[in-house]
Amino acid sequence: MDEKLILDGQKVANDVKEGLKPRIAVLKEDGIIPSLATILVGDDPSSATYVRMKGNACERLGIHSQRIHLPKETTTDELLQTIHELNNDPTVHGILLQHPVPSHIDERAAFEAIALEKDVDGVTSWGYGQTALGFGLYPSCTPAAIVRIMKYYNIEAEGKHAVVVGRSPILGKPVSALLLNMNATVTTCHSRTVNLPEIVKQADIVVAAVGKPEFIKGNWLKEGAVVLDAGYNPGNVGDVEYESCYQKSSAITPVPGGVGPVTISMLLKHTVDAAEKLLEAK
Amino acid sequence: MDEKLILDGQKVANDVKEGLKPRIAVLKEDGIIPSLATILVGDDPSSATYVRMKGNACERLGIHSQRIHLPKETTTDELLQTIHELNNDPTVHGILLQHPVPSHIDERAAFEAIALEKDVDGVTSWGYGQTALGFGLYPSCTPAAIVRIMKYYNIEAEGKHAVVVGRSPILGKPVSALLLNMNATVTTCHSRTVNLPEIVKQADIVVAAVGKPEFIKGNWLKEGAVVLDAGYNPGNVGDVEYESCYQKSSAITPVPGGVGPVTISMLLKHTVDAAEKLLEAK
Repeated sequence: MDEKLILDGQKVANDVKEGLKPRIAVLKEDGIIPSLATILVGDDPSSATYVRMKGNACERLGIHSQRIHLPKETTTDELLQTIHELNNDPTVHGILLQHPVPSHIDERAAFEAIALEKDVDGVTSWGYGQTALGFGLYPSCTPAAIVRIMKYYNIEAEGKHAVVVGRSPILGKPVSALLLNMNATVTTCHSRTVNLPEIVKQADIVVAAVGKPEFIKGNWLKEGAVVLDAGYNPGNVGDVEYESCYQKSSAITPVPGGVGPVTISMLLKHTVDAAEKLLEAK
Repeated sequence: MDEKLILDGQKVANDVKEGLKPRIAVLKEDGIIPSLATILVGDDPSSATYVRMKGNACERLGIHSQRIHLPKETTTDELLQTIHELNNDPTVHGILLQHPVPSHIDERAAFEAIALEKDVDGVTSWGYGQTALGFGLYPSCTPAAIVRIMKYYNIEAEGKHAVVVGRSPILGKPVSALLLNMNATVTTCHSRTVNLPEIVKQADIVVAAVGKPEFIKGNWLKEGAVVLDAGYNPGNVGDVEYESCYQKSSAITPVPGGVGPVTISMLLKHTVDAAEKLLEAK
């Protein structure tokens, strides 16, 4: 790349959404309105905001948004019951359980209860396994967004060294798996990694998925690295120190306006995919 | 480590098997004989040898070995039917489908058909996903063997840089996942990796899982690296060039007598684990 590229997530998200419009129209002609059920447990304000943003994004595109808000006292069993009902509801194509749930709930059990074919947010271990082995339908939305941004901007992964900082089940691990399947050599780092800056220095592609504001510094980067920042922290900052990383990179996602909007568009895409699968199966 | 250590797989395998004996005795008192069904399709001689070795290892320990040998003309549907019957047979605790099956069969579909609770060989995507997310019961046996050898010899993973060469669904990918969960920083390499020797040079721990005889050379290694060779190639050689790698390493698995015998013992262990789970569920 000759000049520095700002990877504009809004542009990628719009591209994804434009691609969905005719597909949604076809589904509607067949009497199917793609439908995403979102489950929010408790009153965490930022979780409430996220769920609202996702629901609104659905509706703007003509996807039905069924918003379930459970009280913070909800038990694991009650949450599982809600999920089972949504699994069995043929009008629901995708289920999203907003993370995190209150700490008394077994979140993993709740995620695992989501039917694979409705796991459009990519949280089940089964969906993760299929993604990692290369035939998953719905990877977690942020990893899927990162891949989508790379494709939109023709950022090649094959033979490149990708360093992923973070190893969470819905971000660091699946994005590592997707990049590996795209033929990158992948190093996954985390809080116990020794000499993190030295490892990041080798990366052609850096994925920041650590959840710490401005954690990755420009002087850690190799000149010309591609920086994909999946972080979103208080103060509207990502996991990389933008100014210094911008200087060293050949391409970088801003925060906000980078990975975030694409993540939501991937959720919409997976919901439409799931509705189409249901139609095919009819 | 002060002196060079040869990681004796036979010793580790014996340790695993000794630990199983009292557990098998307890199961038998409860009227349960742990039972492994092995499925061999076709007449590939080395596959036949592997299956026989596994079956014999079962019987020497008092685990029932149900050996199913299907003709090479078997269709995917017929194989799936056999697997379904074994899934539903309460006297069978573990199912092993010997890889590879004849090329006209959809091997992935066959693996995926194995019930999670009987997937003692760790081949399903669901089992893989659970392993990678940290709560899987039965990782693939070779990755499990590598971890077991490390534990037996007190080889610490935390904070170490592990480089895995290979990314197959039952070896490179799951061993990368297990090492990551043991808090190693993990780099997964493969045929498209550029500058492989340079990357291997950084490794504190090298896992050779590439399936190419004597592929990894001693001069690729950092002085004092731990070398775990999961390869087994014609001529009784592994994936590392033993003599030169021995010189540079602090610890190394020989071939034969390294990872191989432990792999079989992990299959036995998983079968006993599965029988115990069934007893608990009663």
